[in-house]
Amino acid sequence: MVNSSDRSLDLGAIGSAARDASRGLGQLSTTKKNEVLAAIAAALRTQTETILKANVLDVEAAKAQDLDLAVIDRLTLNRERLDGIAAAVDMVEALPDPVGAVDDARRLPNGLEIGRRRVPLGVVAVIFEARPNVTVDISALCLKAGNAVILRGGREALQSNIALANVIRAAIEAAGAPSASVQLIDDPDRSLLEELLRDRTHVDVVVPRGGSGLIDFVSSTATVPVIETGWGVCHTFVDAGADLAMAERIVLNAKTRRPSICNALDTLLVHRDVAEVFLPSVGRTLVEAGVELHADGRVSSVLGPEIPSVVLGDDDLDTEWLALRMSVVVVDDFEHALAHIQEHGSGHSEAIVTSSHRHARRFVNEVDAAAVYVNASTQFTDGGEFGLGAEVGISTQKLHARGPMGLREMTTYKWIVQGDGQVRPV
Amino acid sequence: MVNSSDRSLDLGAIGSAARDASRGLGQLSTTKKNEVLAAIAAALRTQTETILKANVLDVEAAKAQDLDLAVIDRLTLNRERLDGIAAAVDMVEALPDPVGAVDDARRLPNGLEIGRRRVPLGVVAVIFEARPNVTVDISALCLKAGNAVILRGGREALQSNIALANVIRAAIEAAGAPSASVQLIDDPDRSLLEELLRDRTHVDVVVPRGGSGLIDFVSSTATVPVIETGWGVCHTFVDAGADLAMAERIVLNAKTRRPSICNALDTLLVHRDVAEVFLPSVGRTLVEAGVELHADGRVSSVLGPEIPSVVLGDDDLDTEWLALRMSVVVVDDFEHALAHIQEHGSGHSEAIVTSSHRHARRFVNEVDAAAVYVNASTQFTDGGEFGLGAEVGISTQKLHARGPMGLREMTTYKWIVQGDGQVRPV
Repeated sequence: MVNSSDRSLDLGAIGSAARDASRGLGQLSTTKKNEVLAAIAAALRTQTETILKANVLDVEAAKAQDLDLAVIDRLTLNRERLDGIAAAVDMVEALPDPVGAVDDARRLPNGLEIGRRRVPLGVVAVIFEARPNVTVDISALCLKAGNAVILRGGREALQSNIALANVIRAAIEAAGAPSASVQLIDDPDRSLLEELLRDRTHVDVVVPRGGSGLIDFVSSTATVPVIETGWGVCHTFVDAGADLAMAERIVLNAKTRRPSICNALDTLLVHRDVAEVFLPSVGRTLVEAGVELHADGRVSSVLGPEIPSVVLGDDDLDTEWLALRMSVVVVDDFEHALAHIQEHGSGHSEAIVTSSHRHARRFVNEVDAAAVYVNASTQFTDGGEFGLGAEVGISTQKLHARGPMGLREMTTYKWIVQGDGQVRPV
Repeated sequence: MVNSSDRSLDLGAIGSAARDASRGLGQLSTTKKNEVLAAIAAALRTQTETILKANVLDVEAAKAQDLDLAVIDRLTLNRERLDGIAAAVDMVEALPDPVGAVDDARRLPNGLEIGRRRVPLGVVAVIFEARPNVTVDISALCLKAGNAVILRGGREALQSNIALANVIRAAIEAAGAPSASVQLIDDPDRSLLEELLRDRTHVDVVVPRGGSGLIDFVSSTATVPVIETGWGVCHTFVDAGADLAMAERIVLNAKTRRPSICNALDTLLVHRDVAEVFLPSVGRTLVEAGVELHADGRVSSVLGPEIPSVVLGDDDLDTEWLALRMSVVVVDDFEHALAHIQEHGSGHSEAIVTSSHRHARRFVNEVDAAAVYVNASTQFTDGGEFGLGAEVGISTQKLHARGPMGLREMTTYKWIVQGDGQVRPV
């Protein structure tokens, strides 16, 4: 797409075009932005053939490389999935536009009128891995919030991403908006990525969306401000005195509903007072659901030989499984559960199942994470579920946005001060 | 203070103590935090002698090194200034506590109760230059927002900072809060600073507060999330048809009220249609106020030989003067003024003086800065003036906080989700 033939991709030109496009986008009315999104959704529905043909190339390459079946499945597009992707654009179109709202507006004693107006971030770079739907989701969210976006997807989805970005850009241009609002870096050269991560002139924010390797690379390389997303070692603690039937439903859902998402359960912590009753029951249920249990000594002795488990490895407690595997640990009491989460949690989603009001309150107050749950499954951490409509990612850092990043989180504000000649006294 | 004698300062221990202290601070009631602040203000008032004695050492060292008089002045404490510093702590005590407020609280259709609760950031590192009052201001603001703070001040103020931090820490401890809530790195070794900027385990946010050299160093070194503050190349554009008497008052105030602050005027842009009337008048006024004008060719030809000016240098338009010097440029029209600010502005404070509603509206919409002014002096960009009470710094980036960072900007939020067994459907 951008110089895809000669591989001498000019990142400065991409950044500069994105900056120019962002200035135009920032001034577009909501009506116009919605027209652009409608054009994109329509184009995705009419150009199915082109997109699927490109996707076949990626899928075949992935099969030839013997990639993991789960990776190939995530990579694969079909008519139904493409229709879902277009429907997600419709949904973003239907969301309220966050840009232009004014907070804290007031008149100061000296007559100055002041307020904080919500404005786009400007140019957002998003670095993501193999799912081609992300290309469309992120583009739609960035456009609606008035941002230009520079996308850098995974090598495995390159042909699909090129096709999708071409369709999106043509639709944007046909709708009368700057096509450089969405640009794809289609050269997998890592030095280009590094250059992007340090382009403070043209890029306002970079969002890595993927595993811990990607996040660490981006955070340690970037000089552009970063919002880290999507890496989570998530715990559920089953307290003494908890409703154990409820606990079992919550644990099963948190682990198995969708094991590959970042808010899936990674480590189950069980209070020793309920371990003997709870573990055999939940253990059996999890194993029947296909989950491999990585158990510490106390857990495996309670589970016994009938419920198979693996010996807990050295790094298991710091592992985000993203699969039907999990760590299981017995803790002595509530304090030990808190300490365990402090030590091993990644600040994503943490849950307690308890009937103690005091423990619920302390858990909520003392656990430092983007989302803290009492008596519910961590699978709910999601922009749609939290009422944000959709999300660019789940932030696990504390600056700017925490948890699901929806449209509002893709904006910033500026102070506007209007007067009739006010000067500041000494 | 922290291992000040042996220079083998253990940064990991400082970080770990700060993290522990932050956990305690985060749970303190507002009443308790206010008691701690009252104790600090009282200690600053009773231990004047100790602090002033330490300050004399810094001032004498600065004189021996022939430092700039302005630097020495900023460094110097006396009874009156110390009293002002203690009064600033009283003021922070009086501000409302941002922690605990819940936004977007609601009950979801499935019965989950959800909301975003405001919580402290955790551990904040602040890197600042020579003003010892910053040590106290930042400590008070961080404490009130429930954050532990690690301070790293300028070498010139080292003895003053050690004395102030000792007074603050003793007061915190006497009031029953963790003294590691405030820690000072008193070893000027730069490698320690670099270690701090990469300590993602213990530090949640780093705020550099100072000139562009410091900001660039911190941004390019840190892997901890950064909020850049305090560097500003600020413009005021005098439009055709502006009230020129008003423009002159605004320009004079923006440049000379306090030339050493980051929102002081750096570059005056004058529409060519008013240059011949406006420039001789404002030029004379500025020169009489002691300002050195760095003028482009069109400006100096209008000013003539009677109003002295210096030839505009190559880097002048990208210079933050922080002194009674400024750049002056004639622009052809409104578009050129916008383009100039786009190219040279640092996203801090930008002003237009105009009588055109359309130009005022476009300036406010299109200029990308933390604070955008119409017909007022940029000297107003300040936490107190904007109604935030006090500030840690003026953010010039777009993530998290923009413009003055008050107490709320020193917090983040967490999502709290409470249920009675909800699991997420497939």
